[in-house]
Parts: sequence; structure tokens; C-alpha cells
Amino acid sequence: MDDAPLKIGIAGLGTVGAAVFRLLEDNGALIAARLQRPVRVTAVSARSRKDRGLDLSKVKWHDDPAALADDENVDLVVELIGGAEGAAFDLVRKSLGNGKPVVTANKALLAARGGEILRLLENGPENGKRTLSYEAAVAGGIPVIKALREGLVANEINAVYGILNGTCNFILSQMRGTGGKFGDVLKEAQAKGYAEADPSFDIDGIDAAHKLSILSGLAFGCVPDPASVRTQGIRDITGVDIAFADELGYRIKLLGIARRTARGIEQSVEPCLVPKNIPMAHIEGVENAVYIDGGHAGKILLTGAGAGGSATASAVVADIIDAARGGAGLPLFGRADPQTMQTADTAARTGSYFLRLTVLDQPGVIADVSAILRDCRVSLESILQRGRAPNQPVPVILTSHETLEGDMLKAAEKIGRLGSSVEPPHLMRIETFERDPLQ
Amino acid sequence: MDDAPLKIGIAGLGTVGAAVFRLLEDNGALIAARLQRPVRVTAVSARSRKDRGLDLSKVKWHDDPAALADDENVDLVVELIGGAEGAAFDLVRKSLGNGKPVVTANKALLAARGGEILRLLENGPENGKRTLSYEAAVAGGIPVIKALREGLVANEINAVYGILNGTCNFILSQMRGTGGKFGDVLKEAQAKGYAEADPSFDIDGIDAAHKLSILSGLAFGCVPDPASVRTQGIRDITGVDIAFADELGYRIKLLGIARRTARGIEQSVEPCLVPKNIPMAHIEGVENAVYIDGGHAGKILLTGAGAGGSATASAVVADIIDAARGGAGLPLFGRADPQTMQTADTAARTGSYFLRLTVLDQPGVIADVSAILRDCRVSLESILQRGRAPNQPVPVILTSHETLEGDMLKAAEKIGRLGSSVEPPHLMRIETFERDPLQ
Repeated sequence: MDDAPLKIGIAGLGTVGAAVFRLLEDNGALIAARLQRPVRVTAVSARSRKDRGLDLSKVKWHDDPAALADDENVDLVVELIGGAEGAAFDLVRKSLGNGKPVVTANKALLAARGGEILRLLENGPENGKRTLSYEAAVAGGIPVIKALREGLVANEINAVYGILNGTCNFILSQMRGTGGKFGDVLKEAQAKGYAEADPSFDIDGIDAAHKLSILSGLAFGCVPDPASVRTQGIRDITGVDIAFADELGYRIKLLGIARRTARGIEQSVEPCLVPKNIPMAHIEGVENAVYIDGGHAGKILLTGAGAGGSATASAVVADIIDAARGGAGLPLFGRADPQTMQTADTAARTGSYFLRLTVLDQPGVIADVSAILRDCRVSLESILQRGRAPNQPVPVILTSHETLEGDMLKAAEKIGRLGSSVEPPHLMRIETFERDPLQ
Repeated sequence: MDDAPLKIGIAGLGTVGAAVFRLLEDNGALIAARLQRPVRVTAVSARSRKDRGLDLSKVKWHDDPAALADDENVDLVVELIGGAEGAAFDLVRKSLGNGKPVVTANKALLAARGGEILRLLENGPENGKRTLSYEAAVAGGIPVIKALREGLVANEINAVYGILNGTCNFILSQMRGTGGKFGDVLKEAQAKGYAEADPSFDIDGIDAAHKLSILSGLAFGCVPDPASVRTQGIRDITGVDIAFADELGYRIKLLGIARRTARGIEQSVEPCLVPKNIPMAHIEGVENAVYIDGGHAGKILLTGAGAGGSATASAVVADIIDAARGGAGLPLFGRADPQTMQTADTAARTGSYFLRLTVLDQPGVIADVSAILRDCRVSLESILQRGRAPNQPVPVILTSHETLEGDMLKAAEKIGRLGSSVEPPHLMRIETFERDPLQ
């Protein structure tokens, strides 16, 4: 047992920061027994001094978070300010510059400025010794960064799929469970604190795209490039989609998909139909899940609490302890010389698709639709129309056999231009997780 | 990049040993790029020199595995001999004594001789620097030891549940899928290489109990004690059990359960009914799964390939790389001073139960059974009897409300002694994974 405590400075005392503070207090004896060294918070910085129910009497307060980097009584800096700009980046730069390991939960920073962080880690005389850890940035308390970077280190990763946004998964689970409409369930999520007042960051898939780009960078040894992720959210999903998906044997999930293909790295965030007979379909509520096609290791699924203060704090403290043990693992993004992300167009992939049309219930509509699909080389698997409503708008659900996504998109666009189409068609991928590596 | 390779000696060239050799060859460049140092097999030892399709021309052959410990050209020893006795233990003792890190997949050794290995690690002048890693001993390619020991290091673990034996899970999945009988499906598993000629080690739950005791030791900071695991296999499961479980909304899985309770650590391996609406119910075939109730981190599920050469090799190589990075993690069993396992009697736990009776179809039988249950304080939730066959043996399925397991066992025993009982009742726990911590 080394009696000298590891001295921690925490920047940001929001939900996660306060939970890290509490976890280190609650489980202090346990953590010391495991690490064989106590861990103590010696300094904090936050925007205001409002009461958070934390006993800060023994810690130094800094109004300026960057001061933590210079505090001689801080060995390791925990950055929980968030955001890719300003204070968070300054603190990271200064801390690494002063030779202090950094632990962060900041997915925006890693996704947007991964290349700059790499250079900060490489610079300076102690080249290679600087560490920044980010287990908490993706999938909350699930140790997915560790699994990918260390547990599966021996494998060429083929693909990473994830349910990476708890807000969206909660909304989709609730819509299915209660039959509620998107807008109403979103309001419920906001009331429960699962969605922000401005929910677009979550429901438009941006948050999931940040996380996917980090997983993708780590899996394939590249600098994350969130701009190259084809991103589609869940605003357009209706009860009709959910009910027909269910009838066809599927659940709708907002999936992040990153795959190594012969054409480059394919990356998307999009609602997909997932077969009900696999575990991924049964991830409900605010849970997250990450599925890794890991070469020799086979296919691995990790699920659990993807957000929330204490689950995220568990990941932050795991990183602190790794750093205390002298180095938080292997290179930041999978290899010492990460590449620029070469991305593959998702339109070039193949798969089966689910297409919801809203058309006038008139003779000849299905014939028009079928002709378009034939012309676009799309082979139909099923057409479902429940109930009749002559000359009224009705939903018609089509599913395709294996087809090129580009062909499917073209067909959907042409169908949308038919006179009988009263709403734009809604296209979703049926994801069976069974494509061959590199295909 | 450190150009000096890490030199590996492998003892045992069975399925896993050969797969480790191949993985280090196939992914050598990738591993070197990640570790920033090449890894090279320099010496091997195996029982025979038969052709395994491996190019051993550049490695030294030792007839005696213990010679790997003394080979100056070996930095790290991989023990894949197996078994708790003899050659495997000798090699581990000698290697650690010579200051060489050991990586092993040997669950029997860890389960049976964990205390001795602890003392080997503690002895010698380099106290605390010796390492033995065992990711490959439990759940094949799923990084569950790393998740528990490092990813969840900040948490007081409440419980660990696992589907830990692929042979049993394959048999149960096949019985459900095909309607086949236990004996026939076992033969199919043997033909596919999923079960041994003598299958008892797997189907009687012994292998799962070894693995559970390792997870339990690590989770709760104790020396593994497989003898204290209440162990029941799957020989007695029939198509009737599977069909009625399905009708009631459950799947049957051979579960390992290790829980921290107010009475001590409760440990069992037993077939349980698992609700169909959770991911654990959808782990099929030879897959494994580990579910961890991790305190602050929440509940985490990890699933994937639990056996097979290349998945297990992935875990072995991950341990090699951890060791090369200078230390394979935190204390062997969760804390520096692991305790003797204080176990809780499983009869003292509560839960709902599924009881299959085989009784003569006669008036009054249900009244007799009901009276026994009442006298034993068991509250019935449902009774199912499909079809009639006067004076012939018929299956009757009972499910209970929350009850004390000891009461349920007493009731089953008394029912078995009724004149109308033609086979011993078959009792299984309904496991919902929802007991409160410490209860």
C-alpha cells in the first residue's frame, strides 16, 4: 500500500462531476484496497458555487478551470466541462503540457478535435508518456472503450454497431410500449429529464454520431471524423412504422454503424429494423448497447446504462485508476499512427429495406409503385396494406430483398413523386448484423 | 517503437495453443502497431510433435513444459496445458519464481488452487510485481475479467450472473428449436465437437461452477471456492419443461449466480427460467453471457463466443499485451488481501419457482398437492395441465409466487412422496435478475 494519495482535480460539477466526487467518497476504502493507494479530490472548479450537497470544505476551489493544470496539489485532471471549444480544450492542453494525465467524458471534444489531442499527446519531451482517457465519453458505465482498445487488442475489427443514445432508445421503446406519438413521448422524455429542452442534438442523431465516430476511430485506427457519418434521426418515425415492424418480426432502433469495407469505412447513424430474435432488439429504455464484430474474438455485445451521473462516474473513476497504475492503455485511437478516415458511401452498401408509403387508396397505385421498383432493380419481399379507405391516404409497407441502397433510394424518390403519394416515403434499413466482413 | 520483441513461450498446443500461435502470426503487424513492440513466439512445448499445421521451424521445442520457465529466450509464459494438477501448476510456479509473467486459460487451476497462486504471486523479493492473467479462463473471447476487474473497479459489485457453459446452452437451445430430447441433442453436440465423449463435466454444471467461482472471487474479493457452489446440471430437463416455460413467457438457461447477500456470498449453477423480454433469454447456441449488477455502474451484460480456439486466443493475446505494457492489472482476486469465501445457503433465498410434477391423472391429486404447498407456506401462481389421460402419468406444471427456496424444496420433496407421484418433481428457479442488493 502506497500511502501517498493520488490527488485529483475535477473541472465541472454538473451531474457527472458531482457523481465522481460522491463515488470517490462512498467507495474510497474499496478503491484504495483495489488500487493499493488512496484517491483523493484535492481541487475543483465549476461555474458557480451553488450548493450541490457536496462537502467541499477540504478541497481547493478554482474559479478558472485551467488553474487545475497549474495546481501543484493536483496529480491528475478530470475534465467534465464538456463542449469542443473554449474552457474544456484549454484545460486539456494545459494539463497535458504540464505532464498531468487527463480523464474526460467529453465526446464532442474527442469527436471534433481528436487530431489536435493526438498532437498534444505526442508533443513535449515526455513523448508517448502523456495520457488522455475517455471511457466515459461513450456508453456511460459500459466499459466499451476498454473492451475495444484492450480486451480486443489482438483483433482486426470488422464492424461496430451501437445503440448509443439513451434518449432516442427511450422514445422508441415508449412509442412501442404505449402506442404514443413521437411528439407526446418526447414531451414525456423531457419531463423525466431524459431529453433536453432543445432535443435536436439527441433526436437528430448528432450525439450518437459523435460517439460512433469515436468508436470508429478507435476500432479502425483513424482520427474520428463525425462529419463523415451519414446521420438520420428519429423524428419521422410513426406508430405505423413501429406496428408494421413488429408484425414483420422487428424492433426499430437508432443504430450507429461503423464497418470496414473494401471501399473504406462506412459510417452511419440511422433508425433500423432489428430482428426480434437477437439480444440487440431487447435493449429497452435509456440503455445503450455496443456490438463488435471482432475478427478472431467473434461477435461481442456489451449493454448497460449509457448515461446518468453514477454510471458515467464509474467509467471516469476506472480511467483515474488506470492512469494511477501508470498509463491508461494503448494509443489514443487504436494505433500510434492513426490514419485519416477514408469513408465509404453508404449508398454503395447492400441490404434489405423497409419502406413506408402514404398513398391515396386508388386502383393502380400498387402497379405504379411496383413498376418503379422493377425499373430500379429492387426485388420486393412483401407488400402490406391493412384496411381500406377509398380515395383516402393509407399507409402501405414494402420490404425488399437484398438490394443496393442507392437503388432503393432512387426508387423511394421516384415513388414520392407519384401523384398518389401524399407524404414522402420513409425508408429504413433492415439490419441483421450478418454482412460478411469487408463486403 | 521498441524493436526488441516480447518473447513468448507457449505450453500446450491444443486448440487454444495453436490458435494463439496463429493469431500472433496473422495479426503480428497489427499487434506491433498497437503495442509499439513486436510479439514473437520463441519456444513451445506440447505432448507430441504431431503436425498441427504450424510452422515451428523458428521456435525452440521443449519436451518438458517447465523448461519454458528457464529458457532465457522466453520473457512471458503462456500456460495452456490445463488441469489443476501436475505440469500446469509446476510451470506456473517455476515461471513466477523466475520472475516471468504468466498468462493462462486454466479455469480448473484458478478455481481449485487460487489461494496457492496468490501466495506464489506474493512471494519473492519482487513482491507485488509478479503477474498472472486469466482473461481466457472465463467466457472465451468476451473481456469479462477486464470488465469486472478494471472497467468496474470503482464499484461494489452486487451480483454476477452468467451463461458460462456453451455446451449446455447449445443443448438447451437445440432442444427448444427442434423439440429434440436431451439424449439425442447431446449426441448431436458430441458429433459437432461441442461436447466431450464424457460430457458430465459440462452437463452436470462443473465447468460452469469453476468459472462462476472465479468470477465470484474477483467480484467479491475472495479466494475462489468451487466446492461451495450449489451445482445442478441439465440432465433432467425435458421437452415438457421447455414447452411450458415457453408458454409461461420464459426460456430455460443454465445460469451461474453469485450474489452478495447479508448472509454471505450465495453461489449456484442451476437451470433457471429467464423472462423472454430480456436480452439474457436470447443468448443462443454456444454463446456465453455475463450479467453484472455493478453498483454505481448499473447493470451490465456482456455476451459473445464463450469458447473455441480463436476467441479464446484473442483473450490470451490481450493478456500478453497487457503484461507487455508492464503489469496485467489490479490484484488477482479484486483486492490485495482476498478473504475466505463466506457462503450463504441458497435455501435461504427467496424467489418464484417452476415445479414439474409427473402424477397419475386421478381425482384428488391437485387437492393433495395444494394442501402440501399450503402447509409449506408456498403460494401458487398457476397450475397447468394440458390434456387428460385418466389413470396415466401426466405432467402438471406449478409456478409459485415469491417464496423461500427452503419451503419450496420441502414441498417438492413431500409431493414426490405422494402415491400419485410417478417421477420425482423437477424444481427450477424463475430468475428475473431483480432482487434487491443484499437481500
